[in-house]
Amino acid sequence: MRSVGVVVNPEKVQQNPEVVVRVRQVLAALLRCGLAVRVNEDGARAVGAEELAATEQELADLSDALVVVGGDGTILRAARTGAVRGVPVLGVNVGGFGFLAEVGLDELQDAVDRLVAGRHAVEERMMLAAEVVRDGGVAERYLALNDMVLTKGGYARLMPLRVCVNGEHLATYLADGLIVSTPTGSTAYNLSAGGPILSPGVRALVITPICPHTLTARPVVVDADDVATVEVATGVEGVLLTVDGQVGCPLRGGDVVRVHRAEERARLVRLKPPSFYELLRRKFAWGER
Amino acid sequence: MRSVGVVVNPEKVQQNPEVVVRVRQVLAALLRCGLAVRVNEDGARAVGAEELAATEQELADLSDALVVVGGDGTILRAARTGAVRGVPVLGVNVGGFGFLAEVGLDELQDAVDRLVAGRHAVEERMMLAAEVVRDGGVAERYLALNDMVLTKGGYARLMPLRVCVNGEHLATYLADGLIVSTPTGSTAYNLSAGGPILSPGVRALVITPICPHTLTARPVVVDADDVATVEVATGVEGVLLTVDGQVGCPLRGGDVVRVHRAEERARLVRLKPPSFYELLRRKFAWGER
Amino acid sequence: MRSVGVVVNPEKVQQNPEVVVRVRQVLAALLRCGLAVRVNEDGARAVGAEELAATEQELADLSDALVVVGGDGTILRAARTGAVRGVPVLGVNVGGFGFLAEVGLDELQDAVDRLVAGRHAVEERMMLAAEVVRDGGVAERYLALNDMVLTKGGYARLMPLRVCVNGEHLATYLADGLIVSTPTGSTAYNLSAGGPILSPGVRALVITPICPHTLTARPVVVDADDVATVEVATGVEGVLLTVDGQVGCPLRGGDVVRVHRAEERARLVRLKPPSFYELLRRKFAWGER
Amino acid sequence: MRSVGVVVNPEKVQQNPEVVVRVRQVLAALLRCGLAVRVNEDGARAVGAEELAATEQELADLSDALVVVGGDGTILRAARTGAVRGVPVLGVNVGGFGFLAEVGLDELQDAVDRLVAGRHAVEERMMLAAEVVRDGGVAERYLALNDMVLTKGGYARLMPLRVCVNGEHLATYLADGLIVSTPTGSTAYNLSAGGPILSPGVRALVITPICPHTLTARPVVVDADDVATVEVATGVEGVLLTVDGQVGCPLRGGDVVRVHRAEERARLVRLKPPSFYELLRRKFAWGER
Repeated sequence: MRSVGVVVNPEKVQQNPEVVVRVRQVLAALLRCGLAVRVNEDGARAVGAEELAATEQELADLSDALVVVGGDGTILRAARTGAVRGVPVLGVNVGGFGFLAEVGLDELQDAVDRLVAGRHAVEERMMLAAEVVRDGGVAERYLALNDMVLTKGGYARLMPLRVCVNGEHLATYLADGLIVSTPTGSTAYNLSAGGPILSPGVRALVITPICPHTLTARPVVVDADDVATVEVATGVEGVLLTVDGQVGCPLRGGDVVRVHRAEERARLVRLKPPSFYELLRRKFAWGER
Repeated sequence: MRSVGVVVNPEKVQQNPEVVVRVRQVLAALLRCGLAVRVNEDGARAVGAEELAATEQELADLSDALVVVGGDGTILRAARTGAVRGVPVLGVNVGGFGFLAEVGLDELQDAVDRLVAGRHAVEERMMLAAEVVRDGGVAERYLALNDMVLTKGGYARLMPLRVCVNGEHLATYLADGLIVSTPTGSTAYNLSAGGPILSPGVRALVITPICPHTLTARPVVVDADDVATVEVATGVEGVLLTVDGQVGCPLRGGDVVRVHRAEERARLVRLKPPSFYELLRRKFAWGER
Repeated sequence: MRSVGVVVNPEKVQQNPEVVVRVRQVLAALLRCGLAVRVNEDGARAVGAEELAATEQELADLSDALVVVGGDGTILRAARTGAVRGVPVLGVNVGGFGFLAEVGLDELQDAVDRLVAGRHAVEERMMLAAEVVRDGGVAERYLALNDMVLTKGGYARLMPLRVCVNGEHLATYLADGLIVSTPTGSTAYNLSAGGPILSPGVRALVITPICPHTLTARPVVVDADDVATVEVATGVEGVLLTVDGQVGCPLRGGDVVRVHRAEERARLVRLKPPSFYELLRRKFAWGER
Repeated sequence: MRSVGVVVNPEKVQQNPEVVVRVRQVLAALLRCGLAVRVNEDGARAVGAEELAATEQELADLSDALVVVGGDGTILRAARTGAVRGVPVLGVNVGGFGFLAEVGLDELQDAVDRLVAGRHAVEERMMLAAEVVRDGGVAERYLALNDMVLTKGGYARLMPLRVCVNGEHLATYLADGLIVSTPTGSTAYNLSAGGPILSPGVRALVITPICPHTLTARPVVVDADDVATVEVATGVEGVLLTVDGQVGCPLRGGDVVRVHRAEERARLVRLKPPSFYELLRRKFAWGER
């Protein structure tokens, strides 16, 4: 390992001054080890390390690993960035729900030491690719770790969404929207919409309608190698595609969104044996009353 | 009965030419009886009865009964209009789901005959009033037969909604939105969001969060005399209040929406003994497999 | 107040020796006040107060108030016993979930002092009556504070249950069973089966099928004055009626169970303003994530 | 193909006399082709072909294919029987829900012709194996195509079920029971208990608690290669293991049921391209309102 990128969510710095202290210690230690260190621009400003500031592109292109200090949102974004070149991501949770983080802020230094020394494992997670097909061509491409979501803004909510799997018609949902989620994303929006939990290693996706106006619908779990397409009916406007709850693009009537397993995989740094069910129990008090 | 208002959804006319024929027959019959007849402006144009055109306000103020030819949306709107002066509404279903209509298009003439002759019953339905409280005053007032719904447009969806019942804190839902529904509205958006069915006569409201990001939430049924308040957190923008899925207003951070039983009641013309459960079974294939 | 009945769950005594100490203190204080004191037989043995032992019938007939030391199960049973003569019940929670209890064990003495001094309120809760109609007559009658539940024992689970409300057919569920629940019972089996929460004061019942083998079913909330009947199909054997999850009777094919609001009402002693939503939040972490 | 086993559900014969005619035609045709033909004993009696009667064991051991005339229950049973030697099963639906059948009764002759001529495909479906581990040894072994279900008979329903996946603790559900289902079984009991649909090819199982007494539980989808164990708490009696809703065994406190993918696979005869989503739409009116 020769270069480490550090991504800091500047909002978390504001909420918790300890973040500055801890991150500055780690930056100093990394530099002492002779490593090239880059910090995202906002984060660098927030912790007073402007001299290490780099663009997101530089972080993605030049880092051998990414250390991400923030909540699940920051980690999701870094995971997408890192996935293109297969860069592993160490998630460090600061506040928030923390489903993707591996350690807390108080373990940051020790975790980075182990990362640099190579005393860590890497867990790969399936990702989703989506193409927006418009006028016969691909207008947009996206990569997601959690989910691809179609919703409708504004007052009127219901819209018909024709969903196919491998070209075969599954259903035309009249709904608020539709989620195609990875196992990783199953604890996010899919859960809110009534979907099942998918254990991280399951070779499957889940297609969950959001508030369908029918009783005859349930989340449908399909194979990881299946291709889901969602068609926005002609004339329907105001539909949005949202990627990991963060990035998005407006869709037009007639657009088809094709969602399938991405070739890229998110690579999460693991320092302890991963234990998804323990996480479920800790975060959700799973099964307890 | 001296004056009848007729409301026709012009879109249904386009979809079904039979509507013109049937409505014109009824208008002629009503005029022959010496009744004052008014038709909503769009509808009058659509069926070629411009000479009877009247504004919505005139229809509301001057009719002894409203005959509504359209889907549930048209009937909802007329029911709100009629409720202010207690005008009974006869719903005539043309296409669509038809939960509120009493008869189909083929029964229109006969139904109007019975209405004019007074050979009908009137079923009263509870309605909701909502006040938007802003800067210490009431900024807006609304009346709903189905539901008052808070949602958030745009890409980011989750927002915290602090909900109180009679001033007592129920929960602060981090959710896509929240529905306060009457029994009548329980088969509409509330059903999509996972809520229970409330039989029409139940003296209760149901408060249903939309896609809450937690497992520890369920629809909560409260008494019809309870007052629910929903507070939009300061700084949260882009929240909309939607009334019966039709009318709406943008809310600001800090707004409080107070929802309670309205003094007005919708008055639905009934020609047969109302049978809600038969409707459930017919519309939803209730309990069948 | 001249006589107090004390009901102690002997299992809780075994699990928590402090129960003995606290209960004995209270018994002594009650006797010092010159009150007649009776203790249920099992409980009297468990706390070493055999001289005060009385039958359940004597407790019900001769007490002006019941103090119940146990979990929700013990309180449910005492509430049924007390309801016949309108005797108020003070629930003292020892372990367990404690939805019905008013105080914890450490508040027992103080709560009893206030009860005896009349410094308390009484909250009334709707109860259910059920009659098992067999061969044209009423074979059994039951009283419930939480719920009346029909289920099927053994390996084969599905059975058709024809449900009517006020004689009108609601549905014939092919299901594992059916729950008719009061608002009080809505947090019990009804919740497990996916039903909504009903605030305690709502004038309604909820009819919830258990694992229906259809998508087209939901819990249905009906008016408190409605009468629900559930018919066991001829030839179906092994069906059980369970009352408050405790008492039960085997049903035969052709039996009809008629469930409606009881004339009796449970009377719960309240020492603080009742706060159902706080209870929801505390017991279920309602709305939290 | 040299020998065909025919399994007829005698109850269906009673309900539908056409079954006798159709089955006898097919038997005659098979014999004319010089094939060895065996019929299950009950079925042989019902259609008047006692001379072809064979035991279930003979059918399983000596048939090159099984033709099953009945509902899903009969097909499930034959699929388990056939799976041991990899015998393909042609399901012929007579009444009922018919999720597993390939053709209806009116297509029976044509379907058998194609089967004998080899003009058919075979779809393999994952099955489950379960071992009941008691006192350190395996007391029972079962094979299921749909599901392995633990439930509790009698009045008291809740029981704690400790569930592990690959030895890791998932949750201890206090529930009415627990389902471990294959994709094939996801439209059966799992659906009733609120579980998701799994497309037939998904390499996954779903673990669904039945009426858990908590809000913090959802169905969990795990990998097809994962091993689930369910532990009956010591002292808990009256627990049953049910296989495909048909076969069962009583469990004792302390028993552990180990459920995992079976080596055997059900082999279903396909005469048309399988279309699971069309089946969903046809059987459940999927997504329609």
